[in-house]
Amino acid sequence: MKELTYFNGEFVEPGAKCVSLDDRGYTFGDGVYEVTRVHEGRCFAFSYHQDRLYRSMREMDIPVRMPPDDFQELHEIIIEQSGITEGYIYVQITRGVSPRHHAYDRSKLEPQFLMSIHPVDMDEVNRLADGVKAITLPDERWARVDIKTLNLVPNVLAQTKAEKKGAYAAIYLRDGICTEGSTSNVFVVKDGIIYTHPADHFILKGITRQMVVTKVAPSLGITVLEKEFDKEFLANADEIFFSDTIGGVIPVTTLDRQPVGDGKPGKVSQRLADGYNKVLDEGLA
Amino acid sequence: MKELTYFNGEFVEPGAKCVSLDDRGYTFGDGVYEVTRVHEGRCFAFSYHQDRLYRSMREMDIPVRMPPDDFQELHEIIIEQSGITEGYIYVQITRGVSPRHHAYDRSKLEPQFLMSIHPVDMDEVNRLADGVKAITLPDERWARVDIKTLNLVPNVLAQTKAEKKGAYAAIYLRDGICTEGSTSNVFVVKDGIIYTHPADHFILKGITRQMVVTKVAPSLGITVLEKEFDKEFLANADEIFFSDTIGGVIPVTTLDRQPVGDGKPGKVSQRLADGYNKVLDEGLA
Repeated sequence: MKELTYFNGEFVEPGAKCVSLDDRGYTFGDGVYEVTRVHEGRCFAFSYHQDRLYRSMREMDIPVRMPPDDFQELHEIIIEQSGITEGYIYVQITRGVSPRHHAYDRSKLEPQFLMSIHPVDMDEVNRLADGVKAITLPDERWARVDIKTLNLVPNVLAQTKAEKKGAYAAIYLRDGICTEGSTSNVFVVKDGIIYTHPADHFILKGITRQMVVTKVAPSLGITVLEKEFDKEFLANADEIFFSDTIGGVIPVTTLDRQPVGDGKPGKVSQRLADGYNKVLDEGLA
Repeated sequence: MKELTYFNGEFVEPGAKCVSLDDRGYTFGDGVYEVTRVHEGRCFAFSYHQDRLYRSMREMDIPVRMPPDDFQELHEIIIEQSGITEGYIYVQITRGVSPRHHAYDRSKLEPQFLMSIHPVDMDEVNRLADGVKAITLPDERWARVDIKTLNLVPNVLAQTKAEKKGAYAAIYLRDGICTEGSTSNVFVVKDGIIYTHPADHFILKGITRQMVVTKVAPSLGITVLEKEFDKEFLANADEIFFSDTIGGVIPVTTLDRQPVGDGKPGKVSQRLADGYNKVLDEGLA
């Protein structure tokens, strides 16, 4: 089992020095990315991630150069060659290479393609079921975080603040409204109903979030409301949980140093976590 | 005369492929930059740019590795070796190289240093005095654009839209308030007084802007008000002008296809442009 990195058509050493100083990813963060879970040696919800990546590229006006079938085949090849059965695949596409000027000329640019595969420590993932800490921070990001771009400075600063305080992640508040986590989506449970921010321009529409909303919760007869809620509602929730690609459904047991509910993983969160793991085990194209 | 590029201690070919795939500048846009004008073979307002760069680094928690004197000397060396007398120096510093994880460990990272020098076409700069077109666009950027980070996707998209419409640049409106341009600051003139957005977290505090506000306008007896104004005030202005490092004071003669004032460069803008060019010729450390 080994990590592999593929860049513009060939396998290279991880962290290889092969990026141009004029890559627009380097000078402007001008690109998009995706992270897809590998479970039991297969991509989970590959078509969802592919659709989201292509949407990000359309929104950014970056042309798709690789046919969808080749893109899928490349995922299968990198999994096989790496021997990784539990992990994730990172894909990053930048707009291209050209001397630094903000405006781009689409016809003159060749997108740069990076893909890598990494194992996940399943013991670490399984420990998340015991609950994690979270802190709230102001959401200072731009107004189009529905596009999965490489402009991640706000996330970097927020996630670092969170980890320095011993938290798993930050929960963002935009003008007092809870949007999402620094690397995941956020749900709260109140009186048996689960709430999460609508999938508009102020959150990244997570694939795990979609699974919870459209598959897992309905199958368990749990009502989901996609509506805005504020910090007070968050702080008084019976349960809070994150949804993310690597960790699945992750109970939040401490918010800003205060216990959430009774301070233990909530029953609804646990049912959803189990339900999500079942969907994961069943696999999804 | 030739363009030169310097990366991590040595001169390299422009656009050289020497950046690591794990450079946080590449994966997160996790870095800052500066652009300093070179006029008559010397940096203009070097100390201002240096101070702003160091402030950006402090706000981003990126350590300064190069002593200030060495930093200045490097500017002088690259100017001399390039033979460029009219141009600009680009400096970019990313947080460092490490396998992709949002949170960073400052103690384990070595910032990556890029510097390059480029000539400016003075005929092109001089033509800006005839006036330029601008369009308004929503300001979708994050809430800390006072930090000069590499997270420039919103600027890339806005500047491209502007140029596609034949405009020099876009003017941003945040919740209806005029903040700044896609690559410059914005001023309007109304009844002989000039207005510009306060230097808070919603604009980048331009050095040329500072020159206009603290040196040029006072020396000409022109009142400057740093206060918010809306789109209506902008559209009804007697004059509008951009201030930027390369172009200086640039009259805007068309806004969203409508003439500004009588559609010719305004008298106040012209006096300020001349005044700024005088300061530029005198030089400033």
